[in-house]
Amino acid sequence: MSYAETGEPVADREGPRGDPARPVTISYIAESAGVSIPTVSKVINGRSGVSADTRARVEALINEYGYRRTNRNNLMELVFDELEDLWGIEIIRGVEQVARRHRVGVVLTEFGPERDTLTYPSDDTLSRRPACIVTVAQLSQEQRDQLRARGIPFVVFDPTAELPDDVPFVGATNWSGGRSATRHLLGLGHRRIAMIGGPDHVLCCRARLDGYRSAIEAAGLAVDLDLVVRTDLTTEAGRTAALDLLGRPERPTAIFTCNDLQALGVYQAARTAGLRIPADLSVVGFDDLPVAALIHPPLTTVHQPLTEMAAAATELALALGRGEETSQVGLELATTLKIRESTAPPAS
Amino acid sequence: MSYAETGEPVADREGPRGDPARPVTISYIAESAGVSIPTVSKVINGRSGVSADTRARVEALINEYGYRRTNRNNLMELVFDELEDLWGIEIIRGVEQVARRHRVGVVLTEFGPERDTLTYPSDDTLSRRPACIVTVAQLSQEQRDQLRARGIPFVVFDPTAELPDDVPFVGATNWSGGRSATRHLLGLGHRRIAMIGGPDHVLCCRARLDGYRSAIEAAGLAVDLDLVVRTDLTTEAGRTAALDLLGRPERPTAIFTCNDLQALGVYQAARTAGLRIPADLSVVGFDDLPVAALIHPPLTTVHQPLTEMAAAATELALALGRGEETSQVGLELATTLKIRESTAPPAS
Repeated sequence: MSYAETGEPVADREGPRGDPARPVTISYIAESAGVSIPTVSKVINGRSGVSADTRARVEALINEYGYRRTNRNNLMELVFDELEDLWGIEIIRGVEQVARRHRVGVVLTEFGPERDTLTYPSDDTLSRRPACIVTVAQLSQEQRDQLRARGIPFVVFDPTAELPDDVPFVGATNWSGGRSATRHLLGLGHRRIAMIGGPDHVLCCRARLDGYRSAIEAAGLAVDLDLVVRTDLTTEAGRTAALDLLGRPERPTAIFTCNDLQALGVYQAARTAGLRIPADLSVVGFDDLPVAALIHPPLTTVHQPLTEMAAAATELALALGRGEETSQVGLELATTLKIRESTAPPAS
Repeated sequence: MSYAETGEPVADREGPRGDPARPVTISYIAESAGVSIPTVSKVINGRSGVSADTRARVEALINEYGYRRTNRNNLMELVFDELEDLWGIEIIRGVEQVARRHRVGVVLTEFGPERDTLTYPSDDTLSRRPACIVTVAQLSQEQRDQLRARGIPFVVFDPTAELPDDVPFVGATNWSGGRSATRHLLGLGHRRIAMIGGPDHVLCCRARLDGYRSAIEAAGLAVDLDLVVRTDLTTEAGRTAALDLLGRPERPTAIFTCNDLQALGVYQAARTAGLRIPADLSVVGFDDLPVAALIHPPLTTVHQPLTEMAAAATELALALGRGEETSQVGLELATTLKIRESTAPPAS
């Protein structure tokens, strides 16, 4: 295998040691790191047989000098930690639509539940050298560095944690979504509006909760912290939280949940408490899963444009894979409120 | 590119012209077809620039002589016509589990809604030369021939139409599932059991309906054809059919539907008719989609082991891709009845 064929200089960046004319080659990196060319090749191709120290040194030099390999296969990769039952398909569909148009094959990878103990799923991704990656899995700093060292651009789909500024991502306008859901309930006349939120370490949950608070405050009301519950993003957690809220002497007349699964739990709790939706209790979810339109009554919820988000992430990743400069490496697509039949004015 | 490297004789078959010692080479096929070696190469690699006639002649010879190329990449392909909202993920998950264990990458391809007008999605699949294919898309005879000609083995997931005996497939025991759903209702004491079936040209629908009839007859009852409706596999079609059934003077006390979406429609119709499930009407679905356990009341339904079916299809496809002889090229995995809360004895 000839590395001269597959390595290419990055045109818009100075070459090593300030010489713009000198292309960054494997041999230059080997020389700088004081290792052999096959060792650099092993690092680039994600193969074993290199000490952690050496690997780190070579990766640092590759990051510094901007070596970029030419991808020799027309494949991109879509990476999940675990495939989500309810929204995985919408993400996959968006990626497929764009990739098909560009005639790029999509390798779909699930790191799987063994991720903590096995490294080979991510090693296998590295060794396939895809043209680019769209990742729903929340990569560690180390994994991001490995991708950069191998010249594989990536875009994070709907990041759940804060990312460094230089990490490309596509998300949804979670704060605005939380705000418009709450404004809808306020507009119907509700004043005791509870929020069942998600875990604080999940970024989108914090944004949705802040949107709720912002809307309440914008209406000239005070946020009643007793009406804010933080719990897991599951039907069972939603049910438990709602049973507590609905059992209080001054129960809320509306509940906004951080996702649709929690809203399904609120439906269960309302039945247990003998309350009708929406006559006695209004409910707004978040996500607009397919199930939201199928349950009774159909759920008013905040639509996340997952397919469009995935399509945008794929366009961005493919552009990065072609080495294009993109002016915008992070974007949020707008959520929209879907008003169905689970919300109504409060009983007077 | 050297074809001597990539073509290999099929050991257990006689060579061309009855000479078992002579390997099937590209040049032999070119000679037999009266075309050049590059033309044969184009056919094998799915490239354009070959007339339809020539392509057919070369493919026929390749089929006859059993030329098989060595796959040079460690990828398999999972092919959908269109990704299904509700069960796509379970299929993908089963494929991923097995492929990850074998350290084979999975290219996921959606032929897409443009399939009728565009051929390039399937051309792209051919030119990627995957080690094997699991196809949820119902391939045409022509597409199957193209795959065979290129030595790419494939397994059909849950075939919707009759297949020739030599086409490997993995399905579910649809007939048994229909039978056990109906026996469950009979066991509860129901006698007027309606069936909302699917389109007759869909094989699994016919099997489920036959299972229903078989159970009724085994109970010594006559099948009342007035109680059997064939319609689309959608919520809306289920609702319309159920409204008709429930509006009759002697309405059924139980309805078995061909899939869970139709059952959701029956739920809607029951609400419209003021009937409670299961006190006034028992309902059994088929598929066990995630939504089945989330609706109220949770739906009794026939579980299709989609993930296990996909895993079995992948094991089979990978074995065929390794050139292994498999004794069993078609199998059906057992369905199981999930009894939840939508079924009860009929009101007396």
